[in-house]
Amino acid sequence: MSDRRPIGVFDSGIGGLTVVRQLKKHLPYEDIVYFGDTARLPYGSKSRDTVLRFSIQNILFLLKKNVKLIVVACNTASSAALCDIKKNFKIPIIGVISPGAAQAASITRNQRVGVIGTRETIRSRAYEKHIKKISKEIKVFSFSCPLFVPLVQEGWAGKTITYDIASVYLEPLAKKNIDTLILGCTHYPLLKAPVASVLGRKVKLVDSAEAVARHTGRILSDAGLSNNKKIRGKLSCYVSDEPGNFKKVAEMFLGHKLKRIEKVDNV
Amino acid sequence: MSDRRPIGVFDSGIGGLTVVRQLKKHLPYEDIVYFGDTARLPYGSKSRDTVLRFSIQNILFLLKKNVKLIVVACNTASSAALCDIKKNFKIPIIGVISPGAAQAASITRNQRVGVIGTRETIRSRAYEKHIKKISKEIKVFSFSCPLFVPLVQEGWAGKTITYDIASVYLEPLAKKNIDTLILGCTHYPLLKAPVASVLGRKVKLVDSAEAVARHTGRILSDAGLSNNKKIRGKLSCYVSDEPGNFKKVAEMFLGHKLKRIEKVDNV
Repeated sequence: MSDRRPIGVFDSGIGGLTVVRQLKKHLPYEDIVYFGDTARLPYGSKSRDTVLRFSIQNILFLLKKNVKLIVVACNTASSAALCDIKKNFKIPIIGVISPGAAQAASITRNQRVGVIGTRETIRSRAYEKHIKKISKEIKVFSFSCPLFVPLVQEGWAGKTITYDIASVYLEPLAKKNIDTLILGCTHYPLLKAPVASVLGRKVKLVDSAEAVARHTGRILSDAGLSNNKKIRGKLSCYVSDEPGNFKKVAEMFLGHKLKRIEKVDNV
Repeated sequence: MSDRRPIGVFDSGIGGLTVVRQLKKHLPYEDIVYFGDTARLPYGSKSRDTVLRFSIQNILFLLKKNVKLIVVACNTASSAALCDIKKNFKIPIIGVISPGAAQAASITRNQRVGVIGTRETIRSRAYEKHIKKISKEIKVFSFSCPLFVPLVQEGWAGKTITYDIASVYLEPLAKKNIDTLILGCTHYPLLKAPVASVLGRKVKLVDSAEAVARHTGRILSDAGLSNNKKIRGKLSCYVSDEPGNFKKVAEMFLGHKLKRIEKVDNV
């Protein structure tokens, strides 16, 4: 069996493209439709109800594109909305929390795991709950880092100031003797160096994107939904604000040029 | 004549309350309806078309509240959308750009004025255009400071890191020998200290909020729309995201407690 319909992916903006990059690597024959809600980003500082409402609108948009599976490539939406969304839609929906939590639980040796994310992701305690389901023995230490996303968007990931801000946020975590840290926001992989500078090189950093791509491959294969036609898949990008700003940063996240990005009203 | 209808005020979020504070001071008998589009903030990084669309939706909401005049208490919306909005609506609409520009033009002695704001406000060159209309002799130097709003929202206005970031943004401006600086974003009055630490105490800082309040008073009075009933006016607050987060910061901006904030869907 072969299902040639695309995979749908959405995020509040651009960060979800780190997941797209891994999907393209692990599932090279799948077409992907990406939606970035750039007119309403960020989600991380907004309430659960609002993030749920936006997420449903994004899913309805992707369903119109005839997708076979949806990846919620946004930690805030995954933690705030995934449970409710899954209840209401028939299509398989994958979030980024559960694969990241599973990977961290399998890596830690001293049973002490850190999580960093946006205010809403941390407030929801979604990673903690998932990890506790896997093992009650694991201690989880969570901290929100609200300025990390604006810093990445400003292109300041490598600046001294970003290292200083990482110190302010992460020094309390550095005292917790963790051996594994979940980067609980799709922008954070671009801040691996400042994060490692505070926590030390021994702490393993878990970037959910790869775990999500592998998990997506398994779900597609188990459900007989894989695209077995051996032709490199296409990526179609849609955004809710003007595509101009998006394009440059998107190419940085993806590591290649993007031909066409279409602006749509998703509400 | 006395018109007891309220004044409508909107902003992308919370910053517009600096204008409300001045309106309450200068026009104490006027009722005010405030709308903060907290579900979709910030506007400063988004395109002109999107900001225009959001602004029109906000105005339609305020019109339902039977307002007699609307203040666009958001620099980004004022610079991106005011001209188009004014064309389409009958009601008097006041932005924050023109009063701030007029004040700066009247203050400067050496004819060298600086402007700082969000990326979209600076890109629009709205302040520059308004100042040039007043006097072609005045040189305008504009710089965007995209991290200033997230820093204020993080409650970091007084931290050393904010002083460091102010240095990065403002050192090029410090070389321009300006004697007047427009704080072209409603959040920036909370950053007067770090800004002054880079530019020196001799540079006069123009906060548009007060100029806007005085201008509103003149418009109301000229049009016979003032409320002459000598009873202290009421403030009604509406937001598009959950009011929880909004309340605490709102009270900081306003300098007094807020009783009730209502969540509404403005789209």
